[in-house]
Formats: sequence, C-alpha cells, structure tokens
Amino acid sequence: MKTTPAFRITIIAEALLEDRLIRDVKTCGAKGYTITQAHGDGTRGVRASLWEGGNIKLETIVSEGVADAILEMVANKYFQHFAVIAYLENVAVVRVEKYL
Amino acid sequence: MKTTPAFRITIIAEALLEDRLIRDVKTCGAKGYTITQAHGDGTRGVRASLWEGGNIKLETIVSEGVADAILEMVANKYFQHFAVIAYLENVAVVRVEKYL
Amino acid sequence: MKTTPAFRITIIAEALLEDRLIRDVKTCGAKGYTITQAHGDGTRGVRASLWEGGNIKLETIVSEGVADAILEMVANKYFQHFAVIAYLENVAVVRVEKYL
Repeated sequence: MKTTPAFRITIIAEALLEDRLIRDVKTCGAKGYTITQAHGDGTRGVRASLWEGGNIKLETIVSEGVADAILEMVANKYFQHFAVIAYLENVAVVRVEKYL
Repeated sequence: MKTTPAFRITIIAEALLEDRLIRDVKTCGAKGYTITQAHGDGTRGVRASLWEGGNIKLETIVSEGVADAILEMVANKYFQHFAVIAYLENVAVVRVEKYL
Repeated sequence: MKTTPAFRITIIAEALLEDRLIRDVKTCGAKGYTITQAHGDGTRGVRASLWEGGNIKLETIVSEGVADAILEMVANKYFQHFAVIAYLENVAVVRVEKYL
C-alpha cells in the first residue's frame, strides 16, 4: 500500500484549553484533529486540571511546515502559563490529501 | 532490553463502525487491538458521528505484512463511504510473540 | 522549532493496575505520564478487565536509559501474571527539561 511520510503532533493540556487549542492548531494549517480525554501528572505536580475536567490529548497529522508552525505556536502562547506538553512523531499516511 | 521492530496501525472512525473494523482488522491478521473513545474534525467537516456516539481510535501492533493488508482493506472497504483515517508508525516491542 | 529526540513508552494494562504501574514507572525515572481509558482484546482472549473497569493506556516520554529501565521492569514484574503490553517509539520533544 502506498503511503506518504507525514508528521503527527501530540499536545497534552488541560481540558479547559480545548477550544482555544483547536482554533490555534487550525490557524497553523491543520486540516483535522482528534481529541481523547486523559489524565496524568508531570513536572508541575498534580495539576488543578484533575478537579476541573482532566486533560485532553489533541493529535493532528500534518506536513513538516505545519508541524513546525504548531510547535512554535504552542511554545509561544502556552508554555509559559500552562502545563502543556507537545511532541512530534513520524508517521506514514494513506490518502495524504486529507492531511497536507 | 531486547526489542523487535513492528508496526502500529491507527484507524480513526465513527464509533458505529467499531465491531465491523475489529472483525476486518482481525481477518487481516491482527492478534489484538486497543480502542479509545475520541472526537474530532477533519476534511469532511463536523461529522454525524458527533451526535451518534463520537469516534473511536483503534490501534493494533502488527508485522509489516499485516500492516499492509490492513491499510489495503481500509482503503478498499471504508475510504469511499466513511470519514476514516489510517496511518502507520514504527514501534519497538517486547514480547514480540504477542503481536506477530 | 528546535526539538530533542526522546522515547515514548506505551503500556496497556488492566485498569486495576493503574496506581501500581504509575508508582513503578516513576521509580524507573519517569517525570510524568498520561493515562487514557481503553478497551481491547489480545492473545489471551477477552480479559476479565472488560467487566472490571476496562484497560488503561499509560504513556510516558523519557530518555533512552529510563525507557530501558521501564521495559525491564514491566517484563520482570508484569508479563508473567498480567495481560500487559509495552512498546517504544521515537519522538521529538520541545522543552526537553520536562521529560529527561
């Protein structure tokens, strides 16, 4: 099956940030996204999110340029004030026109 | 720790398709799968799934041959009629006999 | 955007094991983790977990050394008695000091 290389960005954040993150990720060029509910703990300790609706994991499959734009955006707009983590992975997609 | 290269297939689809996708993925040779509830948006806009039970994310760890069979199957049976996305990643597994 | 290579460990297990797995993963050196609810099936058939609260997917981003320690720990403490799977992926992270 023919596949095309692409990038998956994962952002984990407080659930309260969902609408804002979706808007910002789309502004960077993402054509779609998937959100799952999550909970967890990180270097800031057990966050307020635990009693405010938990965390979300937002995943989006994008081109290298859009991936870079999203990471820059998250670093600039979220890292200082929120317990947000973001990372990048290589994936191989079918039907590439849905993502890029 | 000794690990073995394998492939993770992720399929995101309407929750209504869960039983059918599980059956089809197993027919292709997958020995197991994990499903998480999700919601999202993609190039077909906000889907009917939003008020019909959301989306599922099905993940399965397989050999290269089974991965290829699953992507072909999804392309042939689902892409035309459903808002399904599918992609492939490299993983390193322990206890390889559980997957391949 | 500058990123740093890191490793994502994914562990899928019965939900009953959540507290124990979190403790063990932190003891191996993980600074944070994310948990999502899941369900599924594997080589041991449909597990008791289905009527005891389902499965969890625990993900943690760590250095190579911590990744190795976690896989050894899971193999030694869980594989014999529980339907646990564990695998490793390469990721690229921003704000590396949160993980390593």
